[in-house]
Amino acid sequence: MTESTTDPTAESATESEADHPSHIRPPGRRRLVSVSVAFAGIPVAVAAAVLTTLGADGREGGGGHQGLGVVAQFLLAAALVLLAAWAGGRLAVRLGQPPVMGEIVAGIALGPSLLGVLSPETMRWLFPDQVRPMLSALAQLGLVLFMFEVGRELAAVRLRGAAHSFVLVAVASMSVPFATGMAAAPLLAGSGAGPAGTPAAFALFLGVALSVTAFPVLARILTDLGLTRTLPGRMSLFAAAGGDGVAWLMLAVALATAGGRSPAALALTALGAVAYGALLLGAGRRVLLALPALRGPGPGSGPAATILLVAGTAVSAAITEALGLHALIGAFLFGLVWPPGRPAADAADRTNAVTRPVLLPFYFLLFGLTFDLGAAGFGWATAGLTGLLLVMAISTKFLGAALCARLTGVPGRDSVALGILVNTRGLTEIVVLMTGREAGIVNDRLFTVLVIVTLITTLMTAPLLRAAGLRPSAPAPGTDDEPGTGRGGSAAGELAGGRAGPALERVGERRGAGEPDLAGHLERRDALEQQFLGERAPGLRDDGAE
Amino acid sequence: MTESTTDPTAESATESEADHPSHIRPPGRRRLVSVSVAFAGIPVAVAAAVLTTLGADGREGGGGHQGLGVVAQFLLAAALVLLAAWAGGRLAVRLGQPPVMGEIVAGIALGPSLLGVLSPETMRWLFPDQVRPMLSALAQLGLVLFMFEVGRELAAVRLRGAAHSFVLVAVASMSVPFATGMAAAPLLAGSGAGPAGTPAAFALFLGVALSVTAFPVLARILTDLGLTRTLPGRMSLFAAAGGDGVAWLMLAVALATAGGRSPAALALTALGAVAYGALLLGAGRRVLLALPALRGPGPGSGPAATILLVAGTAVSAAITEALGLHALIGAFLFGLVWPPGRPAADAADRTNAVTRPVLLPFYFLLFGLTFDLGAAGFGWATAGLTGLLLVMAISTKFLGAALCARLTGVPGRDSVALGILVNTRGLTEIVVLMTGREAGIVNDRLFTVLVIVTLITTLMTAPLLRAAGLRPSAPAPGTDDEPGTGRGGSAAGELAGGRAGPALERVGERRGAGEPDLAGHLERRDALEQQFLGERAPGLRDDGAE
Repeated sequence: MTESTTDPTAESATESEADHPSHIRPPGRRRLVSVSVAFAGIPVAVAAAVLTTLGADGREGGGGHQGLGVVAQFLLAAALVLLAAWAGGRLAVRLGQPPVMGEIVAGIALGPSLLGVLSPETMRWLFPDQVRPMLSALAQLGLVLFMFEVGRELAAVRLRGAAHSFVLVAVASMSVPFATGMAAAPLLAGSGAGPAGTPAAFALFLGVALSVTAFPVLARILTDLGLTRTLPGRMSLFAAAGGDGVAWLMLAVALATAGGRSPAALALTALGAVAYGALLLGAGRRVLLALPALRGPGPGSGPAATILLVAGTAVSAAITEALGLHALIGAFLFGLVWPPGRPAADAADRTNAVTRPVLLPFYFLLFGLTFDLGAAGFGWATAGLTGLLLVMAISTKFLGAALCARLTGVPGRDSVALGILVNTRGLTEIVVLMTGREAGIVNDRLFTVLVIVTLITTLMTAPLLRAAGLRPSAPAPGTDDEPGTGRGGSAAGELAGGRAGPALERVGERRGAGEPDLAGHLERRDALEQQFLGERAPGLRDDGAE
Repeated sequence: MTESTTDPTAESATESEADHPSHIRPPGRRRLVSVSVAFAGIPVAVAAAVLTTLGADGREGGGGHQGLGVVAQFLLAAALVLLAAWAGGRLAVRLGQPPVMGEIVAGIALGPSLLGVLSPETMRWLFPDQVRPMLSALAQLGLVLFMFEVGRELAAVRLRGAAHSFVLVAVASMSVPFATGMAAAPLLAGSGAGPAGTPAAFALFLGVALSVTAFPVLARILTDLGLTRTLPGRMSLFAAAGGDGVAWLMLAVALATAGGRSPAALALTALGAVAYGALLLGAGRRVLLALPALRGPGPGSGPAATILLVAGTAVSAAITEALGLHALIGAFLFGLVWPPGRPAADAADRTNAVTRPVLLPFYFLLFGLTFDLGAAGFGWATAGLTGLLLVMAISTKFLGAALCARLTGVPGRDSVALGILVNTRGLTEIVVLMTGREAGIVNDRLFTVLVIVTLITTLMTAPLLRAAGLRPSAPAPGTDDEPGTGRGGSAAGELAGGRAGPALERVGERRGAGEPDLAGHLERRDALEQQFLGERAPGLRDDGAE
């Protein structure tokens, strides 16, 4: 970021000196004084005279504030949400956890689970009813832009040509917990289904809830522990990426079959979803590729590409929401078809680097205001249910991934690490749970229990790996991470990937710290693919605009 | 953006090949099949069996949508606002106007002035009551972040050491229209003051309304016509920068004296404002400079600096709003004290490049929904008032600037150009007018008339300059602007300054297109100062962190 700045001042200084004085015939001193009096003195005197005549006393008027206005309340709440999320993230890093977990916990702390218990009045004063829709607007925009980014990251992962063992482990780490969740659904439906939780929708939802692995959070953990380039690291990332795609598809099906709709409406949703998906993945992709703003060859078309990204994500999200799915499905699909080439990827990197830290914390607040630890009810029944789901979630993920890996020839130690890693549910699971709750598929009690399961399984990943003594087996050379401060990330990664794709950050970092990497997404994709595939796909650099 | 990307793939490919196959003992074909059946076949069969048993029929539920939900409505409206603003901006550029004028007109077109006349139902369907607070949240955030940027840009302008003629012209171009507005206020107060428009507040407001020159819009026009480096170009930019600072101060006073408050409350506001301003400009600046996230020496602390920027702007805005001024004053002040050094300026450039095009259009919508052309009432009285204010606005600005310039030795032709240029009121004036209307200082009728005056005086600047045959007298070498497409901007400028500071863009551009310029704000400041001062201030590069 520093090396290429030639000094631009020398040239312009000369120019300015050359043309500045030559144009003006400098006025005499007397002229200056008289002009000053005429153009400054007289007008100021007039203004002063008017003010004196009118007097500055307050005439009775109808305006006037009372307490804090809505705008001030909104701005105050917004600042608080951002600072709390940031502080939570920093604290999490200190505790050896991925920052997003701290941000989620900060959201919970501002809601009825902590602040609402300590001081309900403070909570209501900070987030009054008029301000909530305003905060929700930022949350919705933050969520769809985050889902766009998830889709975009997943689109960068090529599944073709991967080793058999990679594919099998990915399938197993998803299918075993998914099937278990579905099989257990009839037993839990009575006490856990929400008002719209038809048996099929509830079963699918529970399957998804147990089988999700959070790609971004996992990547962050791998990076912090220096495990990104190890075999279990690469396998778990591959499994998370593949699994996420399937999970969103299954969630879409669950939402479509959620209750309260006639069979005709259900058919319409299914038809509409398939038609829209096909349209977007077929024609939509080609249209985007043809747009001048996303094609180059200029060095980024700036605002146009950013506007297209946000507006396109919003439209796509609105369409799937209108179809009866959820806004996030449309945003995810739009991310999938976003062109990987130069100007488009740059615009997405830049936009994400700002919207991720500025908007997503509002989603955590929305989540925190929704989540009430007390809703689960304290007692043996809740404890038992939590324990049961915890065991189910952990054991099926672990068995599916670790056993399958061991059977396909992965060393025992690496298989264990893999089994621990795929239990990272993190942010993805939170989004899945919130979506299921909003759609009425799951009730507040089971929602609360599942959130607890999510937090525990995610929080235990890093300590478990450390306890198991799984040190980096092939640390990246020149890595100067400071997990204690979280400030070791390269400008490249921080700029381009924000915190949503930290594995990518550190891949970028190997290219030399301090080097701006706005254009690096394509390169990072290549690097990511090597991590997954072990070799470089030919001609990959040509699939974008360049 | 391209030159420094060494190929990172060669190395990692070798590494991956080296450690990938060696770790895994490849399983036999039979083992593969049986593992596949166990981990993929069986779970899928279980899931299918559960689904079949449960059936996919819709149990009666309580959820269910009806029409478009609030989220879909919000996302749809958001996309429409962004695309309309973008299209308006493109159209304006085609017509030889600054893009922001097109964005403002797009906002008006979506409101009661056009869409509301053509099809009130469509307008109400697009922007229903539940969605308006959500859109307003984006608008408020967009406005305060824009005002932050205005403050930051103005802080870069050093007034010390400027030539006498520059200072005198700046004062004259502000003071003459200001005094005229104040003098005319008693005549217009009867028909134009709002419910909170005390005589003093109304007079100050009218003075500000007549005397504003829009720094960003002016800069854009100068750039498009290639006049940035000419004498009238530099003089008008200097006058706009100085005038803007005074205008926000005067507006703050007007807001403080607006009606509906007891003298005690008024005194409290005044005291609070002075105390807060002093605190921010004194201790606040030093605190910000000391924060690790804004200090470097790392290449940008990424999310932390961005969060600090947004949260700090929001807090500062909330404080001034709570004090009885307006949120934008606090945001402006926070922009004034934002450190000019490396990581802080980078973060601000990056944040602005995304928030400017993504959030500010919602302010234009808010404005458009507020502004009703019909509110002025069609008729001779309105036409007469509009004509009177137009003549007043144009003649006082023109006379103040042009005559003063001529008398201080500026050539006649340049003086005329200067007089035309300072009539650019643009976005700054729109913000001033909206603020006065919200505070109840001005009523709907006069507000509408003043908006019309603003639009006319801004729109006529570029054509007038062209008609007067004022060609660039000292075009910047190597400038390849394409005013017809608006895509001639450098990545540097587009990235760093967005559209808010286009003059800065092109200054950056001279350093070579395609070069990333995230760090260039300091250099651009220097360059900007040369434009104003004619020579380089010594030691300027040292005032930040580096």
